[in-house]
Amino acid sequence: MAPDVPLVVPQVNGDHLAMVRAQPSFAATGGFIVTNANCSTTGLVIALRPLLDAFTVDAVAVTTLQAISGAGYPGVASLDILDNVIPFISGEEEKMETEYAKILAARDARSGALAPPAFRVSAACHRVHVRDGHTLAVTVALRARPGGAEPTPAAAAAALAAWAPADARVSRLPSAPAAWLELRAEPNRPQPRLDRDAGGGYTTVIGRVRADAVHTVKMAVHSHNTIMGAAGSSVLNAELAAVMGLLKQRGE
Amino acid sequence: MAPDVPLVVPQVNGDHLAMVRAQPSFAATGGFIVTNANCSTTGLVIALRPLLDAFTVDAVAVTTLQAISGAGYPGVASLDILDNVIPFISGEEEKMETEYAKILAARDARSGALAPPAFRVSAACHRVHVRDGHTLAVTVALRARPGGAEPTPAAAAAALAAWAPADARVSRLPSAPAAWLELRAEPNRPQPRLDRDAGGGYTTVIGRVRADAVHTVKMAVHSHNTIMGAAGSSVLNAELAAVMGLLKQRGE
Amino acid sequence: MAPDVPLVVPQVNGDHLAMVRAQPSFAATGGFIVTNANCSTTGLVIALRPLLDAFTVDAVAVTTLQAISGAGYPGVASLDILDNVIPFISGEEEKMETEYAKILAARDARSGALAPPAFRVSAACHRVHVRDGHTLAVTVALRARPGGAEPTPAAAAAALAAWAPADARVSRLPSAPAAWLELRAEPNRPQPRLDRDAGGGYTTVIGRVRADAVHTVKMAVHSHNTIMGAAGSSVLNAELAAVMGLLKQRGE
Amino acid sequence: MAPDVPLVVPQVNGDHLAMVRAQPSFAATGGFIVTNANCSTTGLVIALRPLLDAFTVDAVAVTTLQAISGAGYPGVASLDILDNVIPFISGEEEKMETEYAKILAARDARSGALAPPAFRVSAACHRVHVRDGHTLAVTVALRARPGGAEPTPAAAAAALAAWAPADARVSRLPSAPAAWLELRAEPNRPQPRLDRDAGGGYTTVIGRVRADAVHTVKMAVHSHNTIMGAAGSSVLNAELAAVMGLLKQRGE
Repeated sequence: MAPDVPLVVPQVNGDHLAMVRAQPSFAATGGFIVTNANCSTTGLVIALRPLLDAFTVDAVAVTTLQAISGAGYPGVASLDILDNVIPFISGEEEKMETEYAKILAARDARSGALAPPAFRVSAACHRVHVRDGHTLAVTVALRARPGGAEPTPAAAAAALAAWAPADARVSRLPSAPAAWLELRAEPNRPQPRLDRDAGGGYTTVIGRVRADAVHTVKMAVHSHNTIMGAAGSSVLNAELAAVMGLLKQRGE
Repeated sequence: MAPDVPLVVPQVNGDHLAMVRAQPSFAATGGFIVTNANCSTTGLVIALRPLLDAFTVDAVAVTTLQAISGAGYPGVASLDILDNVIPFISGEEEKMETEYAKILAARDARSGALAPPAFRVSAACHRVHVRDGHTLAVTVALRARPGGAEPTPAAAAAALAAWAPADARVSRLPSAPAAWLELRAEPNRPQPRLDRDAGGGYTTVIGRVRADAVHTVKMAVHSHNTIMGAAGSSVLNAELAAVMGLLKQRGE
Repeated sequence: MAPDVPLVVPQVNGDHLAMVRAQPSFAATGGFIVTNANCSTTGLVIALRPLLDAFTVDAVAVTTLQAISGAGYPGVASLDILDNVIPFISGEEEKMETEYAKILAARDARSGALAPPAFRVSAACHRVHVRDGHTLAVTVALRARPGGAEPTPAAAAAALAAWAPADARVSRLPSAPAAWLELRAEPNRPQPRLDRDAGGGYTTVIGRVRADAVHTVKMAVHSHNTIMGAAGSSVLNAELAAVMGLLKQRGE
Repeated sequence: MAPDVPLVVPQVNGDHLAMVRAQPSFAATGGFIVTNANCSTTGLVIALRPLLDAFTVDAVAVTTLQAISGAGYPGVASLDILDNVIPFISGEEEKMETEYAKILAARDARSGALAPPAFRVSAACHRVHVRDGHTLAVTVALRARPGGAEPTPAAAAAALAAWAPADARVSRLPSAPAAWLELRAEPNRPQPRLDRDAGGGYTTVIGRVRADAVHTVKMAVHSHNTIMGAAGSSVLNAELAAVMGLLKQRGE
């Protein structure tokens, strides 16, 4: 969370990578630091990006059902999770309630300043008996932008379905999947076992986009925690850094 | 949901049982119909009752992580739930978003009229790989009542900890547990496997009462779905009906 | 089990396919019936074939730990298998104790008569909480053949490792895996989750070939029950039938 | 396994406790060492004792399906056992293939010498996705004793059902269950989730006593690994030591 270290989910805020040019080491040696987001934050910001591009977001509440692989190995003891849910993951809610603001901040291309979004995120995190793949129950309070479309569930689903990263180079990265987002129409998807391998783990699968009785829209989001939510994000960040000319060639 | 059929979670709205006197069969034969609530609704209204007694509730959002026994037997196929989460239970969200209003309605003792509460509930329901015990992630938007305490997390926890049913007879029913509510201070409770047998399955266990970044307070609620959420509720309803003199004796 | 219907695990007794020529329908219409074996039997006979080719087999005892997918869909209720073992699968032990004899029978190429092997198989079958992949604990009483090698664990492992089907065409079938058998040296393999996808589910993985205190050799055998043990076996049988010229072309 | 340290499963070889009188510390201070058996061995010897009392045992083969709690806490990583079987538990087979001989040894009451039984045990051990309770698939080669009954499955079942420890004091110990052995007639019992709490975890549950195609009789045995197979055994040993006058009173 250091100010000059970008926190990058490449399809969401790939432009933040340029922040590394301000790191002291960049000029000196070409070295720089980029971090990728917490695995749960990753799925959340990927699902919020299209909504933020189309509507005004006023608030977000997310409940996670997270896979055991998120805790590493040996990680979660089998005696703790067999026939059980653990409604707590140390530090996870704090990360989800802060990282989104840095990732979804608008970056001024000239000054490089980040303007975080105005809305807040409330997170409740759970460990469940699933090997890989985090499921997020997300509700979003939305408003139409001046002159913009009403944020109906159909309009939100359309925004999600039509979305692509602003920087088209991101979608042509070697590890980029055919689709960054996949919308499922079935009432009972996404499910970790059925959807975690979509796009080799790089595709975030969203379903059940529907009206919310308290906020505006709710949806189920699935993200592969060890691919898009971890190593895959790092791979894409490196690929994007190369495309953006941030990597010094050997011998340069 | 028929107007003259009470929907009763005994410790929450036991007074609604009196509604059966208005059922045509009651005068004619002494027979009457009482229903108990959906298993997920049960845990929710038990946790909301103390908050509603102490504060003004403006909105509620709940995400459920429900046990397989809620689907009966054979119910959920093992191939569907092993290493998986199913983010959908047919009809469940609709029940949770309507039943609470009837159960938490204030009943005018004279007219018998029910005045439902003003707030709305948003529900997102999931099936998880747990045998018994529903976990609910609940967030509540609260306001102080005129002249009342501020709804801080500590005040909400105190309201939950101090709560007892208005009608003291409910707590003396033969099947009543030592405590209707149990507050856990550990960061990682309640958990189905550790807490589902509290009070023989009749005690609702609540933990993690904490500030919510969007609403006011959030908490983790655990309720045993086949005991307090099903058969046990029916047993308590029958016991309370006896105490209230609603049961005709054999030969009367 | 009809006498003129071959029970074929292609890499084990592909030559039995020729039996279909004796079926009345074959001459009349070109139609014929081939069956593949029970999923547990399949893994067993694949592991026994190399031992039977190298030594005299006197007795076999097998205990199975079978995946839930073996029961089809919806199949095993999640309430029955979560946190449990079921030491019984209806009809399974009977199949394992009879089918092997037909599959491992030597077929006289001229008369077509089947001579079943002399040894008996004892089976104890269990359902365990695994999605796909049957694990078999196999113990075998072996004797050296006249002039043959002693059936030490090392010799048994070597026989397994070196084995290939007598009919080399079987290993060139379109769906044939790179290896029919894979021997693992680690003390804790094979495991369903790690080994079921070997060879796309067509490779049987064997480990822990070691001395047996009562019989001669014991080993752990893993076979993918829905691929090599079911649909895959059928596919291979069809491919082999084509190679053997048993399939009438459209219009013939 | 030290020669003067008894390895005691109280209902099986409680008389071995007397061996502690030969330990140097016993005379000096009253202190002595007793060990209880490996959790898997415990279930096995409890099931073999009645057969050994009624018939001549020639050989035993056992395959185990062991619960995760046998590995302690944190023990088995959830990533290792979810949707999996591990066909190996370090040192377990070796213990099962040696400890039975010491426990089932006949003790000469005068000399104190132990005469181990003549048969061998072959063990294959597996970890399965069960919280508590070890399931054992046991096959036994039996012969009638001179003048004794034929070891039919019915006779074996009768021997198991009628069995009680030779020393009646064992069955009156404070922690002794109503029955040391429970025979189930259903085809699909015992099961860990249904049978592990029999007798508070002190009752060994046996089912499926049936003919074995290779040996004589096979059966399914269930023993609670953390109660009868561990702490409970120690408690019973202490209680029996008290009854046998082996415990020095405070101040003696």
